[in-house]
Amino acid sequence: MTWVALAGGVGAARFLRGLVAVVPPEDVVAVVNTGDDREFYGVHVSPDLDIVTYTLAGQVDLQKGYGLAGDSFALVDALARFGHPTWFRLGDRDFATCLHRTLRLRAGAGLAAVTDEIRRALGVASRLLPMSEDPCPTYVGLRDGRRLHFEEYLARDGAPDEVVDVDLGAAARARPGPGVLDAIAGAEGVILCPSNPVVSIGPILALPGVRDALRRSAAPVVAISPIVGGAPVKGPADRLLRGIGAEVSARGVAALYRDVARGFVLDERDLEDEEDVAALGLVPSVVDTLMTDAARAARLAEATLELARRLR
Amino acid sequence: MTWVALAGGVGAARFLRGLVAVVPPEDVVAVVNTGDDREFYGVHVSPDLDIVTYTLAGQVDLQKGYGLAGDSFALVDALARFGHPTWFRLGDRDFATCLHRTLRLRAGAGLAAVTDEIRRALGVASRLLPMSEDPCPTYVGLRDGRRLHFEEYLARDGAPDEVVDVDLGAAARARPGPGVLDAIAGAEGVILCPSNPVVSIGPILALPGVRDALRRSAAPVVAISPIVGGAPVKGPADRLLRGIGAEVSARGVAALYRDVARGFVLDERDLEDEEDVAALGLVPSVVDTLMTDAARAARLAEATLELARRLR
Repeated sequence: MTWVALAGGVGAARFLRGLVAVVPPEDVVAVVNTGDDREFYGVHVSPDLDIVTYTLAGQVDLQKGYGLAGDSFALVDALARFGHPTWFRLGDRDFATCLHRTLRLRAGAGLAAVTDEIRRALGVASRLLPMSEDPCPTYVGLRDGRRLHFEEYLARDGAPDEVVDVDLGAAARARPGPGVLDAIAGAEGVILCPSNPVVSIGPILALPGVRDALRRSAAPVVAISPIVGGAPVKGPADRLLRGIGAEVSARGVAALYRDVARGFVLDERDLEDEEDVAALGLVPSVVDTLMTDAARAARLAEATLELARRLR
Repeated sequence: MTWVALAGGVGAARFLRGLVAVVPPEDVVAVVNTGDDREFYGVHVSPDLDIVTYTLAGQVDLQKGYGLAGDSFALVDALARFGHPTWFRLGDRDFATCLHRTLRLRAGAGLAAVTDEIRRALGVASRLLPMSEDPCPTYVGLRDGRRLHFEEYLARDGAPDEVVDVDLGAAARARPGPGVLDAIAGAEGVILCPSNPVVSIGPILALPGVRDALRRSAAPVVAISPIVGGAPVKGPADRLLRGIGAEVSARGVAALYRDVARGFVLDERDLEDEEDVAALGLVPSVVDTLMTDAARAARLAEATLELARRLR
């Protein structure tokens, strides 16, 4: 039996590192957001898939949370002198991963198969499933009328605070990737990782059939709040939550998950939200959710599994 | 008025470095072999164009004669772990050049335009013309029946001594690149650089119209022997000359050029070939052709120009 985790990037990766410390890594299946995927410099970049892969391989740049530790940037720097915009700082070895993906996709392999090749090549024992093999770019609408690909919004423009809309339409029209619905249907439990609920978990839930599969699942579905003390630990979740009209709080996130999750792990610094979470119909569990090291990530995973087992 | 140089890789690049020291660089046009071009790792590699560009930009790895000085190899090393053969050791910054070329070609630019962009970006004042914009891969036939792309023969297999055939058929069916025939027709003089006569100069001469343009040119055409003391300075020219049934000697090379060149610069260590060169109808000039530094390359260029001017 497997634990299925719906995952975005940094927050999910840190949690998964903890999860594989408390359950056998080969019993973990991560369904990973591909809404941030995009071609940069002619290669298919899958930011969240690579963050999760590198983190589980123990090769991630821990300081940044993404990219490979000790990577160099000779390629992007050299591209700059030919006039290419190089705001997407893809490292040389990171580029090799994306280039391998691109060459394999061009040769006719599916993204799921290529993702599996990459995680095996890097020694990752858990299965990683792209949420979809169809392109499903997430777009962010700004107050001034601009519509940006999520990576333009985040990496190029530094996540400005003027979001009025998040467009998950492409995901809503895409097919779930190979194995995704089956993994959810056969899971011992499903965990919504402490990722951005709008642009990381949101696209996965937007895929046709995923919310239904979660609702129909006999297994417990537990979400972990990415909010600590009323604010996101990292990243622009606050701006994106406000942009879709949701509250920037643990209970605000719980409200987004109320139709699919049965349990909700929130941080002890958001204790005042516990009753509201319960009122939404979710069984709350209040713990320290900060994953500043591997041991803390493992404790959060343990607490999450405990809640899930209680809900069976 | 311009000096047009038909050029291969390392030998030509070293000569051109000398040539631009004795004539204004902007008066030099190099027509460069593209018979070695090939896609590696999804990018269009033009080995000879890049060697010439990097050398004239003062950025070549002088030790190897190709690639960029101080380049790193993180990308190819990282590709190896995904199972890619990485015998073609493309550096990270070198890859960026090839990636730029690939992205521009994919966007619809021609190889000549892209080559011009690259040489300008690297501060090269001389014009560099790809001999053709059509694919014209050179194949080498071996005794055991194998037919290898030139880079497989050279870079992968280390230029084995069992060549029975060199196939320039693709070049013979290709169109000369934009500006090539015009440059020859309007030149003050044409120089066949001290490159491999079989696989570097050979493909250029194989292009429809090039031999004719050289024969019809009112300007002097002078070739420089790549043979020093009866052997090539570097590379497998001996094996390739034998492979096409030519003699490995200055007079052997002169014989290949007798229908297009009027002058022939040979090394003083091959003095015994002088009379045979003259007997072939070529005006010989015997000098020290070894280009062990920039000053010697400039002296060879000066001697070549002197011969050309004498033949006007």
